[in-house]
Amino acid sequence: MGIVIRNARAVLPEGAEDAVRETSIYIEQDRIAGIGQAPAGFCEDRVIDGTDKLVIPGLINCHTHSYMSFMRNVADDLSFMDWLFGTIDPIEQQMTDEDTYWGANLAIIEMMKSGTTCFNDMQMNIHQTTRAVKESGMRAVISRGLVGNGNDEGGQMRLRQAYEERDAAKDCDRLSFVLGPHAPYTCDEAYLRIVAEEAKKNGMGIHIHLSESESEIAQIREKNGCSPIALADRCGLFDVPAIAAHCVQIDEADMDILKAKHVSVVTNPASNMKLGNGFAPVAGMLAKGINVCLGTDGAASNNCLNLFHELSLLTLIHKGTGRTPQCVSAREGFRIATINGARALGMEKEIGSIEVGKKADLAILDLNTPSLTPRNNLIAGLSYSANGSEVDTVLIDGKVTMENRKLLTIDEQLVYRKIQGIIERMGLDQKTY
Amino acid sequence: MGIVIRNARAVLPEGAEDAVRETSIYIEQDRIAGIGQAPAGFCEDRVIDGTDKLVIPGLINCHTHSYMSFMRNVADDLSFMDWLFGTIDPIEQQMTDEDTYWGANLAIIEMMKSGTTCFNDMQMNIHQTTRAVKESGMRAVISRGLVGNGNDEGGQMRLRQAYEERDAAKDCDRLSFVLGPHAPYTCDEAYLRIVAEEAKKNGMGIHIHLSESESEIAQIREKNGCSPIALADRCGLFDVPAIAAHCVQIDEADMDILKAKHVSVVTNPASNMKLGNGFAPVAGMLAKGINVCLGTDGAASNNCLNLFHELSLLTLIHKGTGRTPQCVSAREGFRIATINGARALGMEKEIGSIEVGKKADLAILDLNTPSLTPRNNLIAGLSYSANGSEVDTVLIDGKVTMENRKLLTIDEQLVYRKIQGIIERMGLDQKTY
Repeated sequence: MGIVIRNARAVLPEGAEDAVRETSIYIEQDRIAGIGQAPAGFCEDRVIDGTDKLVIPGLINCHTHSYMSFMRNVADDLSFMDWLFGTIDPIEQQMTDEDTYWGANLAIIEMMKSGTTCFNDMQMNIHQTTRAVKESGMRAVISRGLVGNGNDEGGQMRLRQAYEERDAAKDCDRLSFVLGPHAPYTCDEAYLRIVAEEAKKNGMGIHIHLSESESEIAQIREKNGCSPIALADRCGLFDVPAIAAHCVQIDEADMDILKAKHVSVVTNPASNMKLGNGFAPVAGMLAKGINVCLGTDGAASNNCLNLFHELSLLTLIHKGTGRTPQCVSAREGFRIATINGARALGMEKEIGSIEVGKKADLAILDLNTPSLTPRNNLIAGLSYSANGSEVDTVLIDGKVTMENRKLLTIDEQLVYRKIQGIIERMGLDQKTY
Repeated sequence: MGIVIRNARAVLPEGAEDAVRETSIYIEQDRIAGIGQAPAGFCEDRVIDGTDKLVIPGLINCHTHSYMSFMRNVADDLSFMDWLFGTIDPIEQQMTDEDTYWGANLAIIEMMKSGTTCFNDMQMNIHQTTRAVKESGMRAVISRGLVGNGNDEGGQMRLRQAYEERDAAKDCDRLSFVLGPHAPYTCDEAYLRIVAEEAKKNGMGIHIHLSESESEIAQIREKNGCSPIALADRCGLFDVPAIAAHCVQIDEADMDILKAKHVSVVTNPASNMKLGNGFAPVAGMLAKGINVCLGTDGAASNNCLNLFHELSLLTLIHKGTGRTPQCVSAREGFRIATINGARALGMEKEIGSIEVGKKADLAILDLNTPSLTPRNNLIAGLSYSANGSEVDTVLIDGKVTMENRKLLTIDEQLVYRKIQGIIERMGLDQKTY
């Protein structure tokens, strides 16, 4: 199967920068086979007209909990304790495997319709997100959230589940797996050490929440005598490729560890603001050369899995806190949302930019939209004026998964009905609110 | 002409709160004639099916410069001086009346497609925004930006233009006019006093930029010996209904003046962050009882005139700066974006909420969208998960101006071509960028 996207504008890497060029992109099977020029023997089965279109590498959402999408807008403007223990926890006690499957589907709909083609997910109910990913044609890295103490049975059981899920999904090469120790406040030091050993032994990466809130820092300093980041390092979690979500409350020493151990940091601006945790020191991390990537977190704390929204926040808020319009530029933001995410997931040779030989994970935006008019500095447009609804067509792994904003792999209306059914079953449909 | 929106959900005011109710809305001519029940003798000329829809009052953008939309994404990630004097000013020197007309059209397209039905505009080329407003069916309050010193001819000429524009638009009751002294750093004290006198004499309101940047504060303190807000007050600008845009850098004494003089403050979160000016003390102003409303500013400093984007920023950033998830709630944000804006414009009896007797300025959102699924707390959804593309149908002054996302009053494609032509004529189409 050969697809050509003809006469489009595309965001292409040029050294350390990106540039918008007019070109055609040739796709064979799952990969980009040519840019500007068809590869030898190219068989043109399908032409996508690129006139008035902008092709970008699919965005990469490096931290989310897709199942939580069924909880969108159920717990807002509450204190953190009321949010987590008063609302989210009781819902999670009631939820079934099936609920999490439909939640993941809703997340995938929202992400795909806003140009995200790969996500890094931490979940609680194995086989459900993987099922939604397989069916939808999405790409994902999955971790079963691990909480536990030392060698307690719960912690061991969750580790076994992580392997069971990985082994059951070997038939889908759009799926990969890492270990997901939830956070230092839900795992004790002994358990974190066990997980680190398991990751080393099995050649797996780590996905963990670190230094999200002030109360977490205080708790870990009291319990473990160091910062959450120093603790994770001392437990060996950074001896394998590691992704640390949040890192809002960190100091220079923490940043030195993150840099020295090549830890990728996922910043989640909406979630960090919404839960009152503040602003991660993104400019400082970038200056230090830390690989910063972008995430939405789950819909219960954002409440939106649209990475264009997050990109806009990323490129605006640090100009506000840093009091300079030159902090986290649109060009930096775009890399954070694409190639930096690929690097965090160990897939920088496969995804994250439009290059010959990489996977054809692409979002095609309609330029006949007010937000992208005029066609001037389109990379600035992606950060500052686009909202994601400009995404018209999506390809993942060389297959068209959305066309003219219609999803080809998911029954959108069915998912909306199923989600509403869950909320009504749980008595959470506050019709008057 | 009678229109009924049947069996929709709608955001309706209930005392100091808003609630989402299932109802039908009856429109006669330009006004809401019934809610839940048809008025006597209602003639049902047209039915809009409200199933799977949410009706909200049209959003009110209380500070923008619509003509600047043709400059979207031309000047980003620059220092304030490079932005204003290096880029924006030279463009404004070249621009023609016609350019500003097309710029205003682009702004109206973007606003209407994201549910804004009224905007408060400050411009430089008279008759152009008014022409675009008349043709498009929009509602607007217009001010000719006034800069000048004492009785200099330029300042007098601009005042005459303001009246000339107002008088020429008497045939359109969707248009109203205020006086727009630009800012204390572009008008001297004598000129501000003249404008205040003119406003009093002519029964007009004031629209002014105040306390946007630290350098403005320093400059006015040095030149006038007080804060920009104290200066505006002492010149008499607050003796008429006044709207102050920005108010980022203000202290308690400034807030006391704003409150005592019933000045409405337009907060512009994206612009304030993007230009490196910081965060307005919105929570403090709300606590003091100041009428805070919402604006996008112009596309050269935002770069987006989508008020859903601004509402999201408004309800997130202050949770981040205040380190509490309970700061500027979704419900507060919604009022700031609607009825508070109406109050600022002196139109709270006419627009800003869905009530019998008010103008039928409505946005109808599609609930079969990922961002508004599940249908739970839809007011939270408007702030935290919607992006404006859910807006399906718009009515202004009782007339349908957009239907199924198609604008009925503006030729979208023509506007995009005209805007691109302006940018190319000015040599600003950086095709490779």
